[in-house]
Amino acid sequence: MATFSCPISLPFKCSSNGYHNLGDYRVDFKINGSTCARPIKCYTLNEIVGVVKASTSLVTDHENRHTSEEQIRQRIPTQKQLVDRYRQGLIIERGVGYRQTVVVRSYEVGPDKTATLESLLNLFQETALNHVWMSGLLSNGFGATHGMMRNNLIWVVSRMHLQVHHYPIWGEVVEIDTWVGASGKNGMRRDWLIRSQATGITYARATSTWVMMNEQTRRLSKMPEEVRDEISPWFIEKKAIKEDVPEKIVKLDDKAKYVNSGLKPKRRDLDMNHHVNNVKYVRWMLETIPEKVLQSHQLSSIVLEYRRECGSSDRVESLCQPDEDGIFANGVEQSLLNNMVVASRIMEGNGQLSSLDMKTYGYTHLLQIKGEINENEEIVRGRTRWKKKLSIMP
Amino acid sequence: MATFSCPISLPFKCSSNGYHNLGDYRVDFKINGSTCARPIKCYTLNEIVGVVKASTSLVTDHENRHTSEEQIRQRIPTQKQLVDRYRQGLIIERGVGYRQTVVVRSYEVGPDKTATLESLLNLFQETALNHVWMSGLLSNGFGATHGMMRNNLIWVVSRMHLQVHHYPIWGEVVEIDTWVGASGKNGMRRDWLIRSQATGITYARATSTWVMMNEQTRRLSKMPEEVRDEISPWFIEKKAIKEDVPEKIVKLDDKAKYVNSGLKPKRRDLDMNHHVNNVKYVRWMLETIPEKVLQSHQLSSIVLEYRRECGSSDRVESLCQPDEDGIFANGVEQSLLNNMVVASRIMEGNGQLSSLDMKTYGYTHLLQIKGEINENEEIVRGRTRWKKKLSIMP
Repeated sequence: MATFSCPISLPFKCSSNGYHNLGDYRVDFKINGSTCARPIKCYTLNEIVGVVKASTSLVTDHENRHTSEEQIRQRIPTQKQLVDRYRQGLIIERGVGYRQTVVVRSYEVGPDKTATLESLLNLFQETALNHVWMSGLLSNGFGATHGMMRNNLIWVVSRMHLQVHHYPIWGEVVEIDTWVGASGKNGMRRDWLIRSQATGITYARATSTWVMMNEQTRRLSKMPEEVRDEISPWFIEKKAIKEDVPEKIVKLDDKAKYVNSGLKPKRRDLDMNHHVNNVKYVRWMLETIPEKVLQSHQLSSIVLEYRRECGSSDRVESLCQPDEDGIFANGVEQSLLNNMVVASRIMEGNGQLSSLDMKTYGYTHLLQIKGEINENEEIVRGRTRWKKKLSIMP
Repeated sequence: MATFSCPISLPFKCSSNGYHNLGDYRVDFKINGSTCARPIKCYTLNEIVGVVKASTSLVTDHENRHTSEEQIRQRIPTQKQLVDRYRQGLIIERGVGYRQTVVVRSYEVGPDKTATLESLLNLFQETALNHVWMSGLLSNGFGATHGMMRNNLIWVVSRMHLQVHHYPIWGEVVEIDTWVGASGKNGMRRDWLIRSQATGITYARATSTWVMMNEQTRRLSKMPEEVRDEISPWFIEKKAIKEDVPEKIVKLDDKAKYVNSGLKPKRRDLDMNHHVNNVKYVRWMLETIPEKVLQSHQLSSIVLEYRRECGSSDRVESLCQPDEDGIFANGVEQSLLNNMVVASRIMEGNGQLSSLDMKTYGYTHLLQIKGEINENEEIVRGRTRWKKKLSIMP
């Protein structure tokens, strides 16, 4: 499992009313127990000094004073918001989904000017957290709700499946939709869609499943009733990816063709939960793939199954095994290929893809903690699929 | 030198007219030589297919067809824009400066919830490019103007100086101002300010100098008259950092206390100019600093002097030498310290900083290409200063 994002939101039935009405929406914040409602944009330097001084005279606790300042700077809503003009976010799907409009930034693309896989994963995390942010349910953690905080619970991701049909390019405006649903009795599903704002073409789809973990004991937890009451009104059935039978990922061993050993998390790889972030795992996985494949191909799908956390002192090994024939054709991936054909016809503006364009590669991955005395411990298993680049940039 | 951003913009005298009037601003794009003006948000899937088909019937050149699609997806303005609602950007300073409002994202902060240095540098690059984007002058490169493209020129940064007084926190809204000025006869200065949107407090200041390089010969170039005509109307005198005598950085040798060898650029470290990006250099530098300093202190200033490019096949060595006394006090940095005192009083809400808070560390850095036969070649020299964390988060 890995900390990755927090994926829920408060119930509110309403559609968009546009960005332009948001000039003075209200934000509530608490100082020393009393609630103070202020229109946004009204804090001046003198005011913030005043607020901090006032709180200093009321509280002697250093931490409380810091919390006040943090609240003023972060402005986490304590009530649901329908629109956030700074995040360019909007509550959609009859009040339960979230849409954010994003410009692909210059540092989010690779040398071919298309967004990197890491950038897409980062944007998934960001939009999931902003979904909760908008809900008014966000507590003072990395996406935990108030009910979760009371129970010392954090979110951990157990599985993720991403399909990329087209990579957005530098400067392109995309819309990212995200929503949540039930997953078994104690889990939650979070889905995403990335769409071109100009054309409406879907560029990528993703689904993920989440469970709760006790922050102290690091053991998985049932979903407490109070948390179910918070989040279940937001659950919807719609799925970004239809998976009738989720693919099993075989466990690699030391006979894998490619092995990178001695990988060590750095300080900057830790997220706000003080764990190695999901994106770092993916980076370690992809670094085992031969450079010539990375040059000519791009990732079309990735499935990740998380098994345990990775701490900052662990030494990690990344294993990778290519598929024997380089071609695959199970049900899920065939439908992906069909999507790619349709989309590529549109993007290419002509009739048929050549057989060369259909040539794909598949890899199985494993990240594990290399035990010195004990057995190795699995962190995450993965499957990646790669298709020939149809890049529009050199 | 390093490719980093492109830092200019077109002359237009006007102040902001707000975001709300931007619903249907116009974007022009060219297909096969004819200009087509369309209001934004009007492309449907059918339209884009139609456009691509139309261009296919007119041009047989694969590249031209791709260029058309790229133009539709990127929508680089061919005329100056005063406001960009997607980028949350605004032309300011009587028509020559640029301001962008940015929310600090969850993946841009470290475990202490404050924005990382890398995130700030990335945002500098992004806002500089968006400044040019808004100008209508941006050509099909990594920030080069039309005049630069005609002369095969790209921007390279020769020096950068950043001072950070406070690090923005997760979810905080900041405003980033950027503008350009003259630097000698053939160079350009680009400055930035990062300010809290809620309080107006300045969090960080930066200045940089840029020169032009011939993309083929990789030699520095004088500024051609046509380029000067494009950019000089945008030059203003205002400076983000007053540097009477820019500090000299001594060259380290193999006797440096900390040495990281065998550093190798990865594919993802290359930017759109196919060079190792500036941010990667800084990462290599900071990784030599002892972990305990990174835990208790935060960078308060960095000066970088770029000497040559680093290619994807180079092997790099990062050298680092701590200052002997751990305390420094030249003119430039003393004024930084004074700023920190003022700002910290505000943020702490009390009178005096203890002497402990004044304890700072200084390091000298060098990145070089380790020659096997020839001399080592300098990539960049650096100076960093570190102050004790006054973090509001645990």
